[in-house]
Amino acid sequence: MDTAGQVIKCKAAVAWEPNKPMVIEEIEVAPPQANEVRVKIVATAVCHTDLYHLYEGMHKDGFPVVLGHEAAGIVESVGPGVTEFNPGDKVIPLFIAQCRECHFCKSSKTNQCVKAWTEVRMDAMSPLDSRLSCKGKKIYQFSGTSTFSEYTVVRQINLAKIHPDAPLDKVCLIGCGICTGYGSAVNTAKVEEGSSCAVFGLGAVGLAAVMGCKAAGAKRIIAVDTNPEKFDKAKIFGATDFVNPKDHSKPIEEVLVEMTNGGVDFSLECVGNAAVVESALHSTVPAWGVSVIVGYSLIQKFSARPGDLIPGRTWKGALFGGFKSKDGVAEMVQRYMDKKIMVDEFITHNMGLDQIMEAVDLMRKAKCVRAVLKTSPQ
Amino acid sequence: MDTAGQVIKCKAAVAWEPNKPMVIEEIEVAPPQANEVRVKIVATAVCHTDLYHLYEGMHKDGFPVVLGHEAAGIVESVGPGVTEFNPGDKVIPLFIAQCRECHFCKSSKTNQCVKAWTEVRMDAMSPLDSRLSCKGKKIYQFSGTSTFSEYTVVRQINLAKIHPDAPLDKVCLIGCGICTGYGSAVNTAKVEEGSSCAVFGLGAVGLAAVMGCKAAGAKRIIAVDTNPEKFDKAKIFGATDFVNPKDHSKPIEEVLVEMTNGGVDFSLECVGNAAVVESALHSTVPAWGVSVIVGYSLIQKFSARPGDLIPGRTWKGALFGGFKSKDGVAEMVQRYMDKKIMVDEFITHNMGLDQIMEAVDLMRKAKCVRAVLKTSPQ
Repeated sequence: MDTAGQVIKCKAAVAWEPNKPMVIEEIEVAPPQANEVRVKIVATAVCHTDLYHLYEGMHKDGFPVVLGHEAAGIVESVGPGVTEFNPGDKVIPLFIAQCRECHFCKSSKTNQCVKAWTEVRMDAMSPLDSRLSCKGKKIYQFSGTSTFSEYTVVRQINLAKIHPDAPLDKVCLIGCGICTGYGSAVNTAKVEEGSSCAVFGLGAVGLAAVMGCKAAGAKRIIAVDTNPEKFDKAKIFGATDFVNPKDHSKPIEEVLVEMTNGGVDFSLECVGNAAVVESALHSTVPAWGVSVIVGYSLIQKFSARPGDLIPGRTWKGALFGGFKSKDGVAEMVQRYMDKKIMVDEFITHNMGLDQIMEAVDLMRKAKCVRAVLKTSPQ
Repeated sequence: MDTAGQVIKCKAAVAWEPNKPMVIEEIEVAPPQANEVRVKIVATAVCHTDLYHLYEGMHKDGFPVVLGHEAAGIVESVGPGVTEFNPGDKVIPLFIAQCRECHFCKSSKTNQCVKAWTEVRMDAMSPLDSRLSCKGKKIYQFSGTSTFSEYTVVRQINLAKIHPDAPLDKVCLIGCGICTGYGSAVNTAKVEEGSSCAVFGLGAVGLAAVMGCKAAGAKRIIAVDTNPEKFDKAKIFGATDFVNPKDHSKPIEEVLVEMTNGGVDFSLECVGNAAVVESALHSTVPAWGVSVIVGYSLIQKFSARPGDLIPGRTWKGALFGGFKSKDGVAEMVQRYMDKKIMVDEFITHNMGLDQIMEAVDLMRKAKCVRAVLKTSPQ
């Protein structure tokens, strides 16, 4: 049945209000308008940012919403003006746009895109042109994507075409966590060959950061987490040392400085906690340490003294690992196809979309790395 | 009269205790020991760090002390093992060492020196091998230098040999303020051609930062100070725009973001105030802004949220403008001799050592850029 031009009725997980479980509902997905693409989502994973929105009030008035932004799918139909995609293309939705035309996109210094910030649909605060509705009500689209649904509509600047043989139930993770962690090490910290690194937090992003440090040639990669159950996994990705802050009475930064005779060259904060942001900075060698903030928190403030940076430290942040989204995702999928990066190893659970609250629960209890939900058959 | 090997009696400004005026006293300067050099100080300037120590209790127990660290002079005699200097050499004392042997000195990534931190004499807390005494009492040496004196003794790793024709009553400023500001723009921020910059605070360090931004090819250099009397001077060094935060009801960072349609590419904080450190960060464009903390404060804490750095900002700090001290000072003196940098323009007052409290007063009241005190005839 050709669905192009038609409203599609399908299943989606709708978050009706904050702090309440999402509910599987039948929603209506309008056809794509100019420069938009309708995508059949084949697989989607749950990321902490989804939970952050749902439970920690990232935007309390951005409800009802379909969450989800780490996914892969197949183009169902395209709106007028779309030249880059055709029905049947394998794609990954992008929560950060790459328009290739703005002064940010044209600069090699950033992966920001002007259209990501100034236009609607960047986040759930932008319902005006959502293509989703349920029970006669407009549903916000999260981060311009909304992948906890069998179908969604995204702008073509928020979509990457990927290798036609890519297994969607694996490469969906490249849409957020893997690029975020890996790129933070490789693109943002610019980890150097033979260097020492510390990665704080061993969720999917932290593990990807470990993988990035290893790919960049780091000699020593210290994995830090309060949950020692995560260390075996970190070893698979390349960690050489494992530290549980709970095993030490002194501050973790002092432990790391002692272990490395003065501090690590690079540290990556993959938790999203202000105290950890500070520890990560202080774990680096004052003369040239680079500390990258990867974990996101809207609310918490971290602090430091001028003397913490003046001897030569650098504090940076990374969104999506500094990758220009369209280019980076296509490139990372290619690397996976070439067996140069691990992806399968992040997946601890495979489920269906209707088990989404089970997946959320696993993540909140830190019992999974990534749970992948099959939404539609590939 | 050959003074080598003899104790020299000479004049120095002694700070007997915190928050009290320095007093001109006759002190005794012991001969240099192994790897040390005794220097006749010809000219010294007063820097805010001296005042900071005297009045804000940088090290309350580091008294009595001879302050002063921005100076130039002539080698009087050398201790055993000194190969790099001979009597008569023109030199500039260095508050930060460069031993050329440690792993920091051997790395191009830092201007720190292990011997600056681990050995005595780095700051006034290290009296053990001071060569100065007064009235039978050991006098602390400040930052391994102590230049408010007709003579002092420094380690050879804390001394730079400079061009034999250099006018000492000018190039003394290269020993701290000029390198600190200029290098922060050129070496640490790595200001780019055609970029926009904001410099907060227009003391000697800030003016040198303006000069550095201009040397690096910045197109727009916004000079920010609450004292509009400083703007004329800033113009001489290359500032193109002038902003007095007191002229605006909104936060200064908002003013700068509006002026530059999104934020400056580079900002330099040359005040040493936590609130200004934060404003300087927020004045930069989120996608790639680089903010460098130059102003020093031991006590104050600044803070930020992860989201301030995550879009792509970089926060750095610079000590002595990132210059390796021996190399940088010699190179900057050469640039002055080649008329590639301005130095004379920083000097607003010429005085004698016995007018030191007058110079301190001018500086505290922001009535001078740099006051140069002639200590001994050149």
